[in-house]
Amino acid sequence: MKSNEILEKLHGIDRECHHLEKVSALLQWDQETYLPPGGEGERSGQLALIQSLAHERFTAPETGRLLEELGSVSDNPRGDESLPSLERDFLRVMRRNYDKAVKLPVEFVASCVRSEALSQAAWVQARRNNDFAAFLPHLNTVLEAARKKAGYWGYPNGEGATLYDGLLDIYEPDMKASDITRVFTPLRERLSALLGRIAAKGQRQVPFLKADFAPEVQARYNQALIERLGFDTSRGRLDVSAHPFTTSLGANDIRITTRYGRNNLLSSIFSTIHESGHAFYEMGFPSEMGESCLADGASMAVHESQSRFWENVIGRSRPFWKAQLPALKAFFPEQLAMTGLDDFYRAVNQVSPSLIRVEADEVSYSLHIILRFELEKELFSGELAAEDLPAAWRRRMKEFIGIENETDADGVLQDVHWSMGAFGYFPSYALGNLYGLQIRQKLIEDIPDYETKLAEGSYKEIHAWLKERIYVWGKRLSPQELLFKITGERLSVEPFLNYIENKYTELYEC
Amino acid sequence: MKSNEILEKLHGIDRECHHLEKVSALLQWDQETYLPPGGEGERSGQLALIQSLAHERFTAPETGRLLEELGSVSDNPRGDESLPSLERDFLRVMRRNYDKAVKLPVEFVASCVRSEALSQAAWVQARRNNDFAAFLPHLNTVLEAARKKAGYWGYPNGEGATLYDGLLDIYEPDMKASDITRVFTPLRERLSALLGRIAAKGQRQVPFLKADFAPEVQARYNQALIERLGFDTSRGRLDVSAHPFTTSLGANDIRITTRYGRNNLLSSIFSTIHESGHAFYEMGFPSEMGESCLADGASMAVHESQSRFWENVIGRSRPFWKAQLPALKAFFPEQLAMTGLDDFYRAVNQVSPSLIRVEADEVSYSLHIILRFELEKELFSGELAAEDLPAAWRRRMKEFIGIENETDADGVLQDVHWSMGAFGYFPSYALGNLYGLQIRQKLIEDIPDYETKLAEGSYKEIHAWLKERIYVWGKRLSPQELLFKITGERLSVEPFLNYIENKYTELYEC
Repeated sequence: MKSNEILEKLHGIDRECHHLEKVSALLQWDQETYLPPGGEGERSGQLALIQSLAHERFTAPETGRLLEELGSVSDNPRGDESLPSLERDFLRVMRRNYDKAVKLPVEFVASCVRSEALSQAAWVQARRNNDFAAFLPHLNTVLEAARKKAGYWGYPNGEGATLYDGLLDIYEPDMKASDITRVFTPLRERLSALLGRIAAKGQRQVPFLKADFAPEVQARYNQALIERLGFDTSRGRLDVSAHPFTTSLGANDIRITTRYGRNNLLSSIFSTIHESGHAFYEMGFPSEMGESCLADGASMAVHESQSRFWENVIGRSRPFWKAQLPALKAFFPEQLAMTGLDDFYRAVNQVSPSLIRVEADEVSYSLHIILRFELEKELFSGELAAEDLPAAWRRRMKEFIGIENETDADGVLQDVHWSMGAFGYFPSYALGNLYGLQIRQKLIEDIPDYETKLAEGSYKEIHAWLKERIYVWGKRLSPQELLFKITGERLSVEPFLNYIENKYTELYEC
Repeated sequence: MKSNEILEKLHGIDRECHHLEKVSALLQWDQETYLPPGGEGERSGQLALIQSLAHERFTAPETGRLLEELGSVSDNPRGDESLPSLERDFLRVMRRNYDKAVKLPVEFVASCVRSEALSQAAWVQARRNNDFAAFLPHLNTVLEAARKKAGYWGYPNGEGATLYDGLLDIYEPDMKASDITRVFTPLRERLSALLGRIAAKGQRQVPFLKADFAPEVQARYNQALIERLGFDTSRGRLDVSAHPFTTSLGANDIRITTRYGRNNLLSSIFSTIHESGHAFYEMGFPSEMGESCLADGASMAVHESQSRFWENVIGRSRPFWKAQLPALKAFFPEQLAMTGLDDFYRAVNQVSPSLIRVEADEVSYSLHIILRFELEKELFSGELAAEDLPAAWRRRMKEFIGIENETDADGVLQDVHWSMGAFGYFPSYALGNLYGLQIRQKLIEDIPDYETKLAEGSYKEIHAWLKERIYVWGKRLSPQELLFKITGERLSVEPFLNYIENKYTELYEC
């Protein structure tokens, strides 16, 4: 076969797997939004089937044969130089995914699916009952599976490389625990110091946040908000779920969710903006990547850089609310009658150490992540046993955030990730913060009147810039390649720390 | 292999196909309810993939081998008599489905999927533009495919058997065109005569039906209504779509839709009751049939017997509204202030010849069906060419209903069925009316205070009776076997015609 025939066959396989992934995403989206409780049991069976069909199709010997044949057609193992660069990138991603997938024995994958499902169910119960001991055996099972997984995949043999690196690589390719530690150390020190200075100033009360905000009015406001932000509702939608998320059900079908609390106006707004940031990325992949494995974010962290950029850097800025507050007040004229821009800006940037990651402010958020990262490192190096997690958690909470959880439900049991075996995922959130601010530095250079635009409620140029610099690349570049292409720089904590320190020193006069 | 091992394998195949069918149903449900317009293109690709995977899985040589092996294990071709009867029925349905499926060549199925998709798109356009000529080539293509399909399947060689019988058999097993003609002839004559007598009495105006009924209030009312009817919302839900439908996404996930017109209170209510009738049937299959091919209606007509029973026989009865009108008036106190039970009962039973089937009243509805049935018979016997359909349609409208359509959009182009190649489906609707009233006769014998129960808004006993007599059988019996089991009688027009003639002679004093 000629290269273009082989390529065509590989695109066919990729397209089928892509469809199956999107079908699986619909099954999950529906599960979180509209599924009646009775349907849950059968839904698991449907999901398991579709996921196993996708795995089966992708790892069929044919895929390997075609990839190999293409390697022999070309001399260059990274792809035939005569191919267009888009095709070379496609092949690189296909090869990477294929290698990861075939290294895991089929029975192992099946047993992981089963034990992760059991573990997640046990976690839900354990969190509800504040009963870590009940969760522990499941945690040990998924930990053991994760260790095996990393073993199957292998990890680079470089200095300081560990089993944990094999897991990190899934979420943040080419990034090792030692690289992350290098940036997380100064991050922790300077954020902890800033948090201490803020805490010393004491809290301000924000009474208007406790008013009664009818969920149905919040729903209308959030719908209006995404439209103002530039969310294309012909290519996506906003729904409600217990935990906000973004999912892609197709190149032109990107869905986000939020949640409404009657006495919590800000929660839905910032969830909506956060998920919109994810959605803009997904909506921005070029149509020629369409139904292929390239139509994906560069990594979890780059994805988070986009959501956190919209949520925090844009969404918690003064100029943003200069443009947006009047509309919000029009939806809640009584509740916000006395709320000026300054009050509101302070309210959305209130720093108050919290036990719960998803409720954390911009200053302490990364500390919650570093805590989890350090525990994960120790779990995989063998320094820490799973049964000792609750105590280790408390110690670090005290050390990093300055408070201590009473219950494990508010501590080690608060996140779903570990119950799903998603070890190595957490660092993405904090790395996303760093990428986001490095990218913003460049954006401000290119759009000097960026703040004026925000104050005018105009996001067109920002969208265009992000699309041209980030979205168009899809998964073609590794996160580090992408970052370098955009900023000409390597990963750095300085832009993020400068931004945070400037903003909060001013806000808290500390 | 022993029979029980073979059986277990067959159940495994059946379960996978069942899951894939339900996944495909979710993709379609979402398409009709929440899919953003941009997602339509990719959704077709997803659907086509899942449907072809289901077909591939089901028709794999393994299925045939297992079924054959089980045949040789047992002497009786209908199944091993030592097996429990549920298993024997399972095997009969599996065999029937398998035989139907493998008789169609794979490339033929694929070409049908493609041409039906094109034809449906062309139909949407043609109906919008009232342009039958633009639709004609597509209609001829799907007609030719349907003829081929019937040829592949074959049809019984009995007296008067035709190609059309091969298609009817899909929707109403063991029923031939000649059987249907035998019941449709007296049906047409007596319904036409009644319609004539009613028309001679002239129309009454019903002003309250033209009031303004806010869709969001209608939505709340319809939700309350299904709960009053006994719809288990932990096992299903009600949403909105352009065309109301019922779909099963799992044994405990049955979804119905309705639609709200601001000046049309009755349309949403009767669509909701109709779809609830379908849903009750689907929800009533015994859990041991769970995720198998037996968890299905006996036929399309039996399904329609249930929806039309709830919509018309219960939902358009006087005692039903005696119980339900106060709640409806509470939702629309101003609009219905002056509406008494008599007014309302008359309003929901207004007979006025209409061009459009889905808007037809109980008296003329079956005439719309018989018209289509006769045209289908002629199309397949060769008496009628597709290009002559519009004229043939007009002639029969005049003859059956007494009015004539000006446009083809209001005539031959009004229904989606033919564009999808679903020839042979229409008779189910009218047969459903007949089954429904035969069943009701028996129900009244067993629950003599049936009307009192309705007047009290109590449906528990009716639900229990329908479940015990109909739902528990799922697809285990053929429609005729089921009817005989319930009523001890063969298909008959008398109960339906007696019901209609009594009800409308009294209502219209004619």
